[in-house]
Amino acid sequence: MTEHRTEKKLIGALAGKAYDKPPVWLMRQAGRYLPEYRALRSEAGGFLELCLNPAAAAEVTLQPVRRFGMDAAILFSDILIVPFGLGQPLEFKQGDGPTLLPLETAADLKRLNHAGLPARVAPIGETVRRVCADLPGDSALIGFAGSPWTVATYMVEGGASREFARIKRWIYRDPSGFDALIEQLIEATVDYLSLQIDAGAEVIQLFESWAGVLASQAFDRWVVKPNARIIQRLNALFPTIPVILFPRGAGLNYQSVIEGVTAAGIGLDTTVPLEWAINLDSSHTIQGNLDPHVLLIGGPILEIEVRRICDAIGKRPFIFNLGHGVLPDTPPEHVAKLVGLIRA
Amino acid sequence: MTEHRTEKKLIGALAGKAYDKPPVWLMRQAGRYLPEYRALRSEAGGFLELCLNPAAAAEVTLQPVRRFGMDAAILFSDILIVPFGLGQPLEFKQGDGPTLLPLETAADLKRLNHAGLPARVAPIGETVRRVCADLPGDSALIGFAGSPWTVATYMVEGGASREFARIKRWIYRDPSGFDALIEQLIEATVDYLSLQIDAGAEVIQLFESWAGVLASQAFDRWVVKPNARIIQRLNALFPTIPVILFPRGAGLNYQSVIEGVTAAGIGLDTTVPLEWAINLDSSHTIQGNLDPHVLLIGGPILEIEVRRICDAIGKRPFIFNLGHGVLPDTPPEHVAKLVGLIRA
Repeated sequence: MTEHRTEKKLIGALAGKAYDKPPVWLMRQAGRYLPEYRALRSEAGGFLELCLNPAAAAEVTLQPVRRFGMDAAILFSDILIVPFGLGQPLEFKQGDGPTLLPLETAADLKRLNHAGLPARVAPIGETVRRVCADLPGDSALIGFAGSPWTVATYMVEGGASREFARIKRWIYRDPSGFDALIEQLIEATVDYLSLQIDAGAEVIQLFESWAGVLASQAFDRWVVKPNARIIQRLNALFPTIPVILFPRGAGLNYQSVIEGVTAAGIGLDTTVPLEWAINLDSSHTIQGNLDPHVLLIGGPILEIEVRRICDAIGKRPFIFNLGHGVLPDTPPEHVAKLVGLIRA
Repeated sequence: MTEHRTEKKLIGALAGKAYDKPPVWLMRQAGRYLPEYRALRSEAGGFLELCLNPAAAAEVTLQPVRRFGMDAAILFSDILIVPFGLGQPLEFKQGDGPTLLPLETAADLKRLNHAGLPARVAPIGETVRRVCADLPGDSALIGFAGSPWTVATYMVEGGASREFARIKRWIYRDPSGFDALIEQLIEATVDYLSLQIDAGAEVIQLFESWAGVLASQAFDRWVVKPNARIIQRLNALFPTIPVILFPRGAGLNYQSVIEGVTAAGIGLDTTVPLEWAINLDSSHTIQGNLDPHVLLIGGPILEIEVRRICDAIGKRPFIFNLGHGVLPDTPPEHVAKLVGLIRA
């Protein structure tokens, strides 16, 4: 008798399998564009409270899977949970984005408390367990973290930044001191992702959202190597768990990522030509890269672009996604339409 | 008797000549980091008034050449002079950046008045003539304009933007209507640059500052082709005037720029690996790409980075520049130090 198990296409694609109808999930698929999210959000208090409330965070994680039948749920959380876990004071003020008490020099690293991390991030493990209990059998659960460089930008700048002047001052004046911060983040990120995997996460995505900020000569040291080390460590600890790396804005340095990192999946931002990506050796499954503005706008261009991407990919292992997160004004019907087009 | 003419190294480099000590100029070399600029600026009234005041704009253009002996002066002006020339209402509010009455659809294009452009931009021609009269014989005068896509972002968004939602809506909903705006900008830009060249500009730089905003499938239509057409037109009208294109943030699409545009020079942003650039065929002279934060910080890293860039370039035709503009807090002594290092 053949054993019939429900197939998780996301995991199949990351193992190198090509599908006529590729798996699909969207970055920020749980979020403000969904009325059921906004309803829950207004009850939950602040954003950080929502991330740390397992019942609410699990519900938000599951909302887009219930509504659209996505091939994956991605844990509802934030890349700043790692600095929070290390004890760096963090606040999300309404409409203003995150504020952290900034780290300015290597001397400030002693304020970070790695030993306290497991207790502080424990609610995230509980969220993962709750999602796993309720997730449909053909949908995979993606855990995630920010990559060290990207998380460090917030920790050093004290929040979002346009100029990145503080972190650039640090890396150029005291590169080995900055390495000490990156080392701490590598350790904390491995521990935090291990907790997610132990709780049931089946795939991990690393978000290197600010890969485009570094000058080329600094890219290997602070983007390629730290991500490579986290992935090596996770691969050794959890050989069956694939990792996707999304180095947004890496530009020509995507080539260094491909050569230097053994990620099962590579996320492509909207600027990456698919002609470039499909000529890569197939040891990396590619994921991407519809322009979120196309999803926002909908109509004929959505059909044209979905077809163009699927045609360009051909028979390669592939995960359909956006090239960046869902925009807050996106009509949910456009997301339903997108999923329908991919499965048509 | 041999005729001894003073050599302009910038023009030599753009003609394919390699120098042991490459020519150097810096984007935003005239500007807020210079005390003599701030002094003149506080007398001149608004920013637009300064751009349209030939005596003051010529003085500002010459300031960095006098102070540092740069190999080129770049006209002090703004990429929004073309929309201003087309009659689009434009204001620079103190500390707020530019504000324009936005164009929203192809129907709004009739508000643009190409016939009025020559008279409105005439003061810029006068600035160029004044700079030429006072420029040292070994320094070249660079005229410039924004590239059509980049200028269009301001015209459609009504100023600087983070999300570019309006222009994305336009290109995806009505691409041929948007082409009509790009066509107008190609014509206006060729006319505006012709005026600068007739007045004495010896080199032209096109700033495609927002090349990184477009998704890859839209890049050829709105970045590569419009720049290629402007450069073909200028090359036909002025065969001796070299053009540098700076497609900031083009990322992997730098390859399409190299293949699709016959520019004498290609500006590299900070993310471009020099190892990639030096393997290009040598029909393009490359220009770049020191991180402006290194210049801001100064000290040992400035020496290390200048040496690294010059060593990587080797014997290729090259123009030393930043990978983006001079940051306003940069100490002028760091710029003097940079020029000294290149010439040491």
